[in-house]
Amino acid sequence: MTQTSRARKFGLAVAQMGPVHLADSRQAVVKRLVEMLREAAARQATFVVFPELALTTFFPRYWMTEEEAVERYFERAMPNADVQPLFDAARELGVGFYLGYAELTADGRRFNTAVLVDRAAKVVGKYRKVHLPGHDDHKPDAPFQHLEKKFFEVGNLGFPVWNTQDINVGMCICNDRRWPETWRSMSLQSAELIVLGYNTPSWNIHWTEPVHLRTFHHEIVLQASAYQNAVWIGAAAKCGSEDGFHMIGSSMIVAPSGEIVARASGEEDEVITAQIDLDLGTTFRQHVFNFAKHRSPDQYRLIVERTGAGEPLPLPPEARG
Amino acid sequence: MTQTSRARKFGLAVAQMGPVHLADSRQAVVKRLVEMLREAAARQATFVVFPELALTTFFPRYWMTEEEAVERYFERAMPNADVQPLFDAARELGVGFYLGYAELTADGRRFNTAVLVDRAAKVVGKYRKVHLPGHDDHKPDAPFQHLEKKFFEVGNLGFPVWNTQDINVGMCICNDRRWPETWRSMSLQSAELIVLGYNTPSWNIHWTEPVHLRTFHHEIVLQASAYQNAVWIGAAAKCGSEDGFHMIGSSMIVAPSGEIVARASGEEDEVITAQIDLDLGTTFRQHVFNFAKHRSPDQYRLIVERTGAGEPLPLPPEARG
Repeated sequence: MTQTSRARKFGLAVAQMGPVHLADSRQAVVKRLVEMLREAAARQATFVVFPELALTTFFPRYWMTEEEAVERYFERAMPNADVQPLFDAARELGVGFYLGYAELTADGRRFNTAVLVDRAAKVVGKYRKVHLPGHDDHKPDAPFQHLEKKFFEVGNLGFPVWNTQDINVGMCICNDRRWPETWRSMSLQSAELIVLGYNTPSWNIHWTEPVHLRTFHHEIVLQASAYQNAVWIGAAAKCGSEDGFHMIGSSMIVAPSGEIVARASGEEDEVITAQIDLDLGTTFRQHVFNFAKHRSPDQYRLIVERTGAGEPLPLPPEARG
Repeated sequence: MTQTSRARKFGLAVAQMGPVHLADSRQAVVKRLVEMLREAAARQATFVVFPELALTTFFPRYWMTEEEAVERYFERAMPNADVQPLFDAARELGVGFYLGYAELTADGRRFNTAVLVDRAAKVVGKYRKVHLPGHDDHKPDAPFQHLEKKFFEVGNLGFPVWNTQDINVGMCICNDRRWPETWRSMSLQSAELIVLGYNTPSWNIHWTEPVHLRTFHHEIVLQASAYQNAVWIGAAAKCGSEDGFHMIGSSMIVAPSGEIVARASGEEDEVITAQIDLDLGTTFRQHVFNFAKHRSPDQYRLIVERTGAGEPLPLPPEARG
């Protein structure tokens, strides 16, 4: 590669994971992650996106006490002894990564968290999931639970953007991707690449939603959000059937044009890569999505002034026709 | 229809228009609109979405003075004598509509405007386009101009929501649809249906964007926005080749599931209809997009605090890894 192309091309990998069953040890999982990191590096990637809660099964589907969940599924430090081989391989290969896990803080708080790791295997950023889906009560009639609101607090770090490998990178997690506020908060900080992991059950426990729509919704929100925010997106699933509970795959890399440039084709461990062109995002930011020229924040105030949907605002006189 | 189904079903029509050439009179255009209104009524619709700037050619493509534009293309009142036949037909048939036009106010201000008209043919709402695309300078080397920033002021009425025909309806216009703030401002006011007209040139004058992406972007922003805001969308194009300048078609009705339930298949005058089920939006609003349960406005403040994209915010200490 010439110096010119190195300046704006970036080797991005998304490492989709097949299922992690209850019986799988963290050591076995980390071994799979290391294998995929090595494959990504061999394919010229310098950054790998791993899934949300990558180290364990998607435990919010099981009813248990917070104490049981902490004991089995949360990490007290990152890295820790179980995960160290992944950090060692990253340092050896000079590959950064995003990794999702259940975080227990020193003062006992619980978050659904992702870390950003640089090419020297140093943790340089942390994001805590803001949009926790699901419920906190036991639903004995549901085929499974979705207890993120029981096991996690709402993330308290906002939507930061970090500069790593000379790129402005933002992070989000799973359900965050359905909320346009997530993406806009980062594109307003000049994010060029936004990475996320997800565990998305194929069945909606709240109502009888056709199963194919679960993947469709994942696609349309990633495609539209990449376009509307002029960012590249790398999205990594943990998917397939974990002890009988199926989750969608379709890990993908999406361009600022909204086009899917790489996509996982199965529901097992699978690395997809692309040499992404960061100038593509710049072009969109200079024209159709030149925020400084086109946005009208004075007219967006309701977005921060209301949480839930409410009554229509009183009409300005001229809006009455 | 039973009383029960009448309560939540709504007959929606989108009236796509083929080209309006420079030589076409307003009277000829209104005759076409009346014909489509009659077809929509015959197909059990009680509301028709017409395009943006429906009464004339898409004049912002031509360089001229503001005075020339006002003289040829702006309306001093709505309705007026030329448009009265459309209002008369609407009253006769009991069909409401959305109509886009260039508005000249009594005090000489110019807006890209749409009116909301009820089943008694009374104007009950007015929206003025907020997100004006294009430029205000003459670009003699471009194949055509896009002078919305010259001919129009930024809309000054916010994003109101009106109750008409027992439904909460919001309006936006063309480029507004690319901006997630548009949709969210209305879904936070419990909009159930959002209607828009558009004139979208098939070529991007700012850079060499593949032509097929123009329709693709239109699709993904409508599909994702319908889903993310749990609203029905009716979107009406003026399309085809106006005096040699081509614009995209693909008028459509999109469900809160993000699915396209009706779509125009050509680039001429064409009415599409659907009996839309408003309960579908309610289901999404009660679960995945229950804003009160899931949104975190405190963490969205940048959306109103910044206009253009800027530097990443200082990192909270815990976000530093």
